[in-house]
Amino acid sequence: MAYEFHYRKMVEFHETDMAGIVHFSNYFRYMESAEHAFYRSLGLTVHCTRDGKIVSFPRGKVECRYSQVLRYEDLVDIHLLVREKRKKVIRYEFIFSRVLGEQIEEVARGAMTVICVTQENPHGPFKSIPIPDFIDRWIEIAPEEAGAPASIQKT
Amino acid sequence: MAYEFHYRKMVEFHETDMAGIVHFSNYFRYMESAEHAFYRSLGLTVHCTRDGKIVSFPRGKVECRYSQVLRYEDLVDIHLLVREKRKKVIRYEFIFSRVLGEQIEEVARGAMTVICVTQENPHGPFKSIPIPDFIDRWIEIAPEEAGAPASIQKT
Amino acid sequence: MAYEFHYRKMVEFHETDMAGIVHFSNYFRYMESAEHAFYRSLGLTVHCTRDGKIVSFPRGKVECRYSQVLRYEDLVDIHLLVREKRKKVIRYEFIFSRVLGEQIEEVARGAMTVICVTQENPHGPFKSIPIPDFIDRWIEIAPEEAGAPASIQKT
Amino acid sequence: MAYEFHYRKMVEFHETDMAGIVHFSNYFRYMESAEHAFYRSLGLTVHCTRDGKIVSFPRGKVECRYSQVLRYEDLVDIHLLVREKRKKVIRYEFIFSRVLGEQIEEVARGAMTVICVTQENPHGPFKSIPIPDFIDRWIEIAPEEAGAPASIQKT
Repeated sequence: MAYEFHYRKMVEFHETDMAGIVHFSNYFRYMESAEHAFYRSLGLTVHCTRDGKIVSFPRGKVECRYSQVLRYEDLVDIHLLVREKRKKVIRYEFIFSRVLGEQIEEVARGAMTVICVTQENPHGPFKSIPIPDFIDRWIEIAPEEAGAPASIQKT
Repeated sequence: MAYEFHYRKMVEFHETDMAGIVHFSNYFRYMESAEHAFYRSLGLTVHCTRDGKIVSFPRGKVECRYSQVLRYEDLVDIHLLVREKRKKVIRYEFIFSRVLGEQIEEVARGAMTVICVTQENPHGPFKSIPIPDFIDRWIEIAPEEAGAPASIQKT
Repeated sequence: MAYEFHYRKMVEFHETDMAGIVHFSNYFRYMESAEHAFYRSLGLTVHCTRDGKIVSFPRGKVECRYSQVLRYEDLVDIHLLVREKRKKVIRYEFIFSRVLGEQIEEVARGAMTVICVTQENPHGPFKSIPIPDFIDRWIEIAPEEAGAPASIQKT
Repeated sequence: MAYEFHYRKMVEFHETDMAGIVHFSNYFRYMESAEHAFYRSLGLTVHCTRDGKIVSFPRGKVECRYSQVLRYEDLVDIHLLVREKRKKVIRYEFIFSRVLGEQIEEVARGAMTVICVTQENPHGPFKSIPIPDFIDRWIEIAPEEAGAPASIQKT
């Protein structure tokens, strides 16, 4: 079982805007990349098919709080933490940090609530379902202290 | 003075993902487009220069709650409302609706807190400042009941 | 029948990059938006279903030549011209111009070859087919001189 | 000196569209990522400052030819080859392949002509210049046979 994951990426040129920083909408793409890499690390994929139905996780609510900017070629660590797990819902927290050699510096915090659904076909309507056991058994809630150094206030 | 704005756009093909719906990160781009069109409607631009300094509004905190999906060629109404105005900060609410002829159907709600800053040059560091009067005098807080029909619960 | 279309849009903030200009990849999204608006102007949609199959137009070859930059809040005119129509293939040319009041100034030229295909389901493999008559009958090749004012050299 | 580079990435969910494939515009972002990683492999960065001026490489002409689709979680190899080097201009070719264990399968070919320019400030106008020696000395033209297995026709 796992309750956290670290995903690293370098900021691409096309992710910046004319203010010279990563466009704020891209942090949500980074969160999703971290989430999907987390699933892969567990042998899962976000868009799997079971018993002829697609199982996936559309978003219910997402948020991000920005404390510092990210710039081109910054190396970013996205720390995913499982903060809540209910019958049909998982809530992730994400801590974004700039990596400078041995040091990391927090730049943003986000959260994402995902809802387990099935679809009969790729463009069909979503029907929420309990998280299937083959996924559920791999994911657990992070201990409260994970990801929360004394000097950083929780979101 | 103004406290609200309606921005309409049609969903583009490249804004969809393999689930056949608008990717959730794009709602934040829609919010920004609505915000910038709101400034333009007041004769302002988000990236203006005053006394040799750039005045702009980076984001402090953003969020979105999704209740229904948006699909290719849906016509979307993004209703911007000014929910809070402090010395250096404005908080907007956004109500996303699908437009079907005369009817509109709410599909999501978002919010965005923006912080007034100056920069000495286009890639320079941000310094937060009080919202300058030439912007401040155009923007006022929406009455609480705006944007909240009886049938829709507030975020 | 139609052989051309004008699509106008204003450059959005998120379409710029840290060089302060529209990222070059976004011109291809503009081309697609113009193409799809062209279909809509003919009562068609790029992703229609006929006899239970999806008919669509994936790209075979695309290109763009940039002569000037586009910046935030520039108004852009994208002039679509049908340059070739074969049994299964249409080739479009696109002339990008900045609009300044009454004047327009060419900034780029692109081209896109699209191939008519069917799919059994939304994620199924593509099978190329002759352009169906209900589409074919609306689209004709532009006269050679269209889109080529004396003052503008052809690509 | 170097004349080629391999850049690998996994297709992200947000890079797909409702046809279930990577949106064609994203291939240009992949090309740019490969190009920038190539510069980094030589100790360079695409947006460097020399003698108080920004040296960068806006695009003159770009193109892509698609032979097969890419899907979510495909591993992609982007093979950059230096095809031409003139005083102010470099032309790159890019071969996109899907990686399946030991095998790779070509899916697309692209090209990009970049022009060396300086800017006085981050949003200033571009002025084309000869490629400075500190960049020029690292980059050479690929031998014609590189990247062209007998079974693949050249673009």
